[in-house]
Amino acid sequence: MKKPVRPEIPRKAIYRLSIYLRCLHRLKSNGIRTVSSDALAKAAGVKPTQLRKDVTYFGQFGTRGLGYDVEQLAAMITDLLGTRRLQPVVLVGVGNLGSALLTYRGFEQEGFEIVAAFDQDIERPRARPFKQPLHPMAELRNVVRERAVRMAIIAVPGTAAQEVANLLVEAGIAGILNFSTIVLQVPEEVIVNNVNLAMELENLSYFIQD
Amino acid sequence: MKKPVRPEIPRKAIYRLSIYLRCLHRLKSNGIRTVSSDALAKAAGVKPTQLRKDVTYFGQFGTRGLGYDVEQLAAMITDLLGTRRLQPVVLVGVGNLGSALLTYRGFEQEGFEIVAAFDQDIERPRARPFKQPLHPMAELRNVVRERAVRMAIIAVPGTAAQEVANLLVEAGIAGILNFSTIVLQVPEEVIVNNVNLAMELENLSYFIQD
Repeated sequence: MKKPVRPEIPRKAIYRLSIYLRCLHRLKSNGIRTVSSDALAKAAGVKPTQLRKDVTYFGQFGTRGLGYDVEQLAAMITDLLGTRRLQPVVLVGVGNLGSALLTYRGFEQEGFEIVAAFDQDIERPRARPFKQPLHPMAELRNVVRERAVRMAIIAVPGTAAQEVANLLVEAGIAGILNFSTIVLQVPEEVIVNNVNLAMELENLSYFIQD
Repeated sequence: MKKPVRPEIPRKAIYRLSIYLRCLHRLKSNGIRTVSSDALAKAAGVKPTQLRKDVTYFGQFGTRGLGYDVEQLAAMITDLLGTRRLQPVVLVGVGNLGSALLTYRGFEQEGFEIVAAFDQDIERPRARPFKQPLHPMAELRNVVRERAVRMAIIAVPGTAAQEVANLLVEAGIAGILNFSTIVLQVPEEVIVNNVNLAMELENLSYFIQD
């Protein structure tokens, strides 16, 4: 299979492709080999027109009346996302949330491996031994370079997050998943995705008002 | 202050209002009483035109040349989001992630209180005692009704998430924050926000490719 050229795809479309990939994995594990665009759209919770538009990022694909080849479409999305090989990730901040992320089984299933964790206090008591090594912050730069890590997760309090982001950028990190509550200032070429748990609840709160 | 009428605001705009609210709280705690739209936009990481458009949801507001009254704008956003009073939330699934969420200090600061947690096995060993009571699933319906809870967090594995969602909807929950990896099927009037941690990494992965 030819590796697709990497088109300019909006961030929202990338999220939808991730959802399609999850649905395709489920279909595959149920022994299903082809799927219609209507059925895949329904499983993913999007409109069929949206799905068909998104799939055009891969050029002509799918056979009218036969639908998509489950394995082939999954492989094309995986290639596009760059997760064919296990990607190394570092995590900074091993408090409650960081500890949960270190033991979160969902990442490896999806192609990501947290290879090392960092904390300003590696001695403070923690619930369990983690399989990942825990380093002091001073070793961040070396570990990131030696393991050629390009992605990082920030799980420190807001007060420390910008300083950590600066260190990560300086070490060569290109993408940051930010769990702190502050808006990080980073150079233009660095991508930050924010996961703000309280904001998600606030968003729900607006929509459930009577 | 008049309570603003509740306009039809897109989900993305609600997220931006949440961000403005965080910036306003920070300004207020730094003793700052008025802020220009340019300065607030910069702090929030949005374009000034976007900010000014978003603020028009509150009608005419702000004085040309003087900017916004920090406290007043914060109060208006809080009213709109429905988080003026502490909102009760239940959490289902007290594994690693659920435990981290139970001890996450960010929620109460932002107007949410996890009042009870539920798990199918309340006896399995857990790292710490939580301040919230831990109930078996059979008590979900009663607790939700007695405490008039309308929001829930799902932190169970994907295999159990749909069943939990059904129970929550049946108990009267109107908004679900879903940490499982599956797409939940719920009635139209129930709102689901998904926090899929692996998808956030996948999204980053696409954008950091060379």
